[in-house]
Amino acid sequence: MTDLRVGVVGVGVMGADHAERVVRKTSGARLVAVADADAGRAEALAGRLSERSASTARHSGGTTHAETVRVVEDPMDLIAADDVDAVILASPGFAHAEQLFACLEHGKPVLCEKPLTMDAASALRVVEAEHKLGRQVIQVGFMRRFDPEYAALKQLLDSGDLGRTLLLHNVHRNKSAPPTFRSEMIVRDSMVHEVDVARWLFGEEITRITVHTPTPTSLVGDGVLDPQLAVFELANGAMADVEVFVNFQVGYEVRCEAVAERGSATIGLGSGVFTRAGEQWGGTMPADFRVRFEQAYDIEVQRWVDATVRGEIDGPSAWDGYAAAAVCEAGLESLSTGKPVDVALADRSEVLG
Amino acid sequence: MTDLRVGVVGVGVMGADHAERVVRKTSGARLVAVADADAGRAEALAGRLSERSASTARHSGGTTHAETVRVVEDPMDLIAADDVDAVILASPGFAHAEQLFACLEHGKPVLCEKPLTMDAASALRVVEAEHKLGRQVIQVGFMRRFDPEYAALKQLLDSGDLGRTLLLHNVHRNKSAPPTFRSEMIVRDSMVHEVDVARWLFGEEITRITVHTPTPTSLVGDGVLDPQLAVFELANGAMADVEVFVNFQVGYEVRCEAVAERGSATIGLGSGVFTRAGEQWGGTMPADFRVRFEQAYDIEVQRWVDATVRGEIDGPSAWDGYAAAAVCEAGLESLSTGKPVDVALADRSEVLG
Amino acid sequence: MTDLRVGVVGVGVMGADHAERVVRKTSGARLVAVADADAGRAEALAGRLSERSASTARHSGGTTHAETVRVVEDPMDLIAADDVDAVILASPGFAHAEQLFACLEHGKPVLCEKPLTMDAASALRVVEAEHKLGRQVIQVGFMRRFDPEYAALKQLLDSGDLGRTLLLHNVHRNKSAPPTFRSEMIVRDSMVHEVDVARWLFGEEITRITVHTPTPTSLVGDGVLDPQLAVFELANGAMADVEVFVNFQVGYEVRCEAVAERGSATIGLGSGVFTRAGEQWGGTMPADFRVRFEQAYDIEVQRWVDATVRGEIDGPSAWDGYAAAAVCEAGLESLSTGKPVDVALADRSEVLG
Amino acid sequence: MTDLRVGVVGVGVMGADHAERVVRKTSGARLVAVADADAGRAEALAGRLSERSASTARHSGGTTHAETVRVVEDPMDLIAADDVDAVILASPGFAHAEQLFACLEHGKPVLCEKPLTMDAASALRVVEAEHKLGRQVIQVGFMRRFDPEYAALKQLLDSGDLGRTLLLHNVHRNKSAPPTFRSEMIVRDSMVHEVDVARWLFGEEITRITVHTPTPTSLVGDGVLDPQLAVFELANGAMADVEVFVNFQVGYEVRCEAVAERGSATIGLGSGVFTRAGEQWGGTMPADFRVRFEQAYDIEVQRWVDATVRGEIDGPSAWDGYAAAAVCEAGLESLSTGKPVDVALADRSEVLG
Repeated sequence: MTDLRVGVVGVGVMGADHAERVVRKTSGARLVAVADADAGRAEALAGRLSERSASTARHSGGTTHAETVRVVEDPMDLIAADDVDAVILASPGFAHAEQLFACLEHGKPVLCEKPLTMDAASALRVVEAEHKLGRQVIQVGFMRRFDPEYAALKQLLDSGDLGRTLLLHNVHRNKSAPPTFRSEMIVRDSMVHEVDVARWLFGEEITRITVHTPTPTSLVGDGVLDPQLAVFELANGAMADVEVFVNFQVGYEVRCEAVAERGSATIGLGSGVFTRAGEQWGGTMPADFRVRFEQAYDIEVQRWVDATVRGEIDGPSAWDGYAAAAVCEAGLESLSTGKPVDVALADRSEVLG
Repeated sequence: MTDLRVGVVGVGVMGADHAERVVRKTSGARLVAVADADAGRAEALAGRLSERSASTARHSGGTTHAETVRVVEDPMDLIAADDVDAVILASPGFAHAEQLFACLEHGKPVLCEKPLTMDAASALRVVEAEHKLGRQVIQVGFMRRFDPEYAALKQLLDSGDLGRTLLLHNVHRNKSAPPTFRSEMIVRDSMVHEVDVARWLFGEEITRITVHTPTPTSLVGDGVLDPQLAVFELANGAMADVEVFVNFQVGYEVRCEAVAERGSATIGLGSGVFTRAGEQWGGTMPADFRVRFEQAYDIEVQRWVDATVRGEIDGPSAWDGYAAAAVCEAGLESLSTGKPVDVALADRSEVLG
Repeated sequence: MTDLRVGVVGVGVMGADHAERVVRKTSGARLVAVADADAGRAEALAGRLSERSASTARHSGGTTHAETVRVVEDPMDLIAADDVDAVILASPGFAHAEQLFACLEHGKPVLCEKPLTMDAASALRVVEAEHKLGRQVIQVGFMRRFDPEYAALKQLLDSGDLGRTLLLHNVHRNKSAPPTFRSEMIVRDSMVHEVDVARWLFGEEITRITVHTPTPTSLVGDGVLDPQLAVFELANGAMADVEVFVNFQVGYEVRCEAVAERGSATIGLGSGVFTRAGEQWGGTMPADFRVRFEQAYDIEVQRWVDATVRGEIDGPSAWDGYAAAAVCEAGLESLSTGKPVDVALADRSEVLG
Repeated sequence: MTDLRVGVVGVGVMGADHAERVVRKTSGARLVAVADADAGRAEALAGRLSERSASTARHSGGTTHAETVRVVEDPMDLIAADDVDAVILASPGFAHAEQLFACLEHGKPVLCEKPLTMDAASALRVVEAEHKLGRQVIQVGFMRRFDPEYAALKQLLDSGDLGRTLLLHNVHRNKSAPPTFRSEMIVRDSMVHEVDVARWLFGEEITRITVHTPTPTSLVGDGVLDPQLAVFELANGAMADVEVFVNFQVGYEVRCEAVAERGSATIGLGSGVFTRAGEQWGGTMPADFRVRFEQAYDIEVQRWVDATVRGEIDGPSAWDGYAAAAVCEAGLESLSTGKPVDVALADRSEVLG
């Protein structure tokens, strides 16, 4: 069996997790190269992950051709390399546009962490360039679609058992943000997930967004507006509200309630070990998104590998990345003006023919 | 990197799942051979899983050396084959003893579905034979140890935060059993999981077992005693109770509550999509153990592969399989007599030195 | 001990419940008179509740002076009657203003079902008239303040353990509304409860309201906007959102989540009997507000009786009724214009001195 | 309307609660007298509860005939008093037999806190004496039957929707017991509730009981066996298990799961305010039975008053008190011998004709 040879660009927290995921948990894929602006951490990761191969070669009874993960200095070289079949982009968002164009040029399938690019205009250019290529090679890292709970919710809503979906209530909470966090990052880095969730669950574009700013928590730096409360209006007249609170103090929490004509469905209520101790019943909150969504990331990468080797990539598309960027841009305007802002989206049929 | 080459003996429901798991979800392993008394289903499975390799070879840009999964007629030949590094035994329990001895003879690591063997005496001979070999090659399929909820419960109890554990309350329910189900199978096939759970969570042997038989549900055939209610006494004086009900009608449910000196902890309360529909709030029950424990099986096999290639198998041991068999034998005697029965266990330090 | 002699004006569903509550569940109060535009149902209720007295007189060993509940034709006569110490107003909202002025004239304590009156202007006149009287005699039927769960939430938020409260998320769902239901009634009859909840939990006035109207469910008559999604802004900058959905189909559901600087707290998640049946786990939804809030109503009336006999009425005041009316008026304007509307509230210190 | 004039014998924690309940929360009843071996606490309570009458008389507009609660030195005098229509017995268990015979002699309805008497033999004599009287005047304080959750469970099981009930799993936990607590008290004072619950839910007598004693928690005094794990067998072959743990440390917890042919139903899972704070989700445990069962006690007393004035007492009978005593006696024997013990119950049809 021929493994898909994967290169990872950017090995910060997310990229390193993905690299390890490819090596330790993903069937049918092999990590061959990593690149990072910080050469030291790329070397360290490559060394650590190569050891596993060596160990395998030593103990298993099979033929031994231990391979190592190599470090490539320039991400563009990694993307171009003959022995790299597909790329995972986990570099900073501002580097995505150039790297995506390189992937398109070499026809390399790419799993690109969100955001697709930094603004709607450049995202649209990526969409157009891929369209010219004639096949989907870009998948955007909206990994909630792969979370078993979100997937079950989507399946339930699509089944029609609850009638038409009317409303979504979303809650998205992080334990705390670093002091450098700015108000805009709530929209672009956090709320962007609920933008995709709303588009995906409804199967409709968002046409209007209002970002409300209640009096902020006293536990953030001056001038940061946290929490934020957004209201989305969708093309079919449905609506969604979203609380994003990145300094929630308690832990990580993501919830989504869909309200339909014949009932409602909620995911993210949590489970695990239910304790009674210290005069309390309950459980612990996950520390962060990596704990809560570990399984979603595993499934996302396995499915991307499987779809890529079959030549049938079907995850969140460049258009999904572009539409999310357009909504976030409108959201940032609403954040600064306090007013509802219409989302200016290109005509899909014109762009994609 | 060299993949562990795995052969699967027995491709009924469990074996086919494991084979597919190795091919589609497990990193660092490759399925090379399957064997089954029913040659037809072995051929069908091998064909289906070989296609994936072919597909991979066709689309991925890498070197193409498409390999197929071959069918081996005689399980003993599969175990002996040079290109099989490790074996998954999912054959019927009565075939285990002979096949395990073959694995021991060839020094092949083996993941053996429960039961280890059909009775305590033969299980003890397996333990002794492995002991002579001088290293652990047998892992028994007590997969609850790999379920994230059970693992978190174990970790919590071992942390000592709740003080010493005093009691376990277990519930183990299947939706329904086939008409051929007999009362003894409840003890040997179902309750055996709770036998292992109790031994593992307490870190103690079970010394006494009582199997109570309340008036059975009217939904089973004549003479079948279902549900059953067992009480275990452990070497340190702790106790556990277990309800096993294989015709529960509703769905699959496994719960475990540990009661300790400073609090209690429960797993298996369920989660997923929480709906409000049809005048009800709640969710759906998993259909069976494959749905509930899918993640546990995935983790079990990935860890076994990882441990095997490192040469450090550390899962449930042959002794664990033997001890469970001894408790079940005593349980069957209690089932037929209605009285508490002491568990006659060999002296571990004598057997294992 | 001298019982408080209570008269009930309006014996539709709510008034009949209150009358029965006074007779069967409330200590220190006695029902002496009822009045209703429908003389027949007043007679029937009085007859039914008088029987209890007769039964009591017959069987108990005490002195027997069986008393009957009499029917008074004109509500104004009931309010004026010498043997009526206090009044429960459960007449239609449009009759409240006149009846409240009569209670004020006679200095009779009155528990007035919401709404206080039909608009903010008349409600303000009631507030002013009571202010001239110099003592609180009016309590408005915002009974959620007496629900044990809401009361515990209020206590938790006021304790300061979670820091300052930042946001409220409210859900208010009825199983179904009669065909005569109009969109405005959602604001005035249903959302008015959340208006009071937000004012009470925050201890702040609402300064601005937006009522959104997503595409309505297909299960209501033409032109009815249901569900509605409102956003409240409070004087201190905090915010609240409210979903009201009076044709939810499933059952009655009221939830409130408060989000504070150091955590969140939710009430209304439900409890009762947790079943596993029909491939589902879960429970049943209460049929309507009378089931869900039965205990709240019992406590409301017992506390009102106790406070009245002590001469220290302290429940929701006429001002609370007026402020809610003012918010609902603004809400109705927002409902028709689709825009945020500022709430024009009189200056409390000017009105109440 | 004539109120039922109630006298309370024994005003420790339970009796004082009941006295206050009659005064403050119960319709149709009046507290006229209290008696207690500790005259001082009887005086204090009577004074405190008389004040309310005075307050009522002062403020309400009705006729003023303020009455005080008087203290009676000898309980037998209270029971005999002409102005006492009915009696609540909350004296120590050892005093019950004599006081119950006095109630029977005077034909006074009596709500007797559990235990009915201290042993099965004396309880049977009470049953026989009441039978001679020809009508039910004794109700035993098995108040779980009045808890809304238990009542809903009973209703569900009796509906037959889940088929025949096969098993009960009970958990009964107190936060901590005083150092004077002895092992026998677990059976007689705590487990007695589950004895009644099992008899009531199944509608069958308990025929056999085993009380297991796992290694006790280290947080109790020497020689006290806590927790205890009991197994009940019922006349129809159904079974129940009960964990009683009176030094659970966390708080008060009572749960009951009924397992039937077509599903299971659980009560006591808790509810109230659901918080997310301090890295935890969950809620608080009730401090003790008075918090958990406050509503059950209120309903118990209101229903007893209502039934008494109608002359139709229908709560737990003297036979229920006797049968519970007989099971507890057998349980104490099992506790000391470690063996199953058959319950020797008189023939009901012989005793009650």
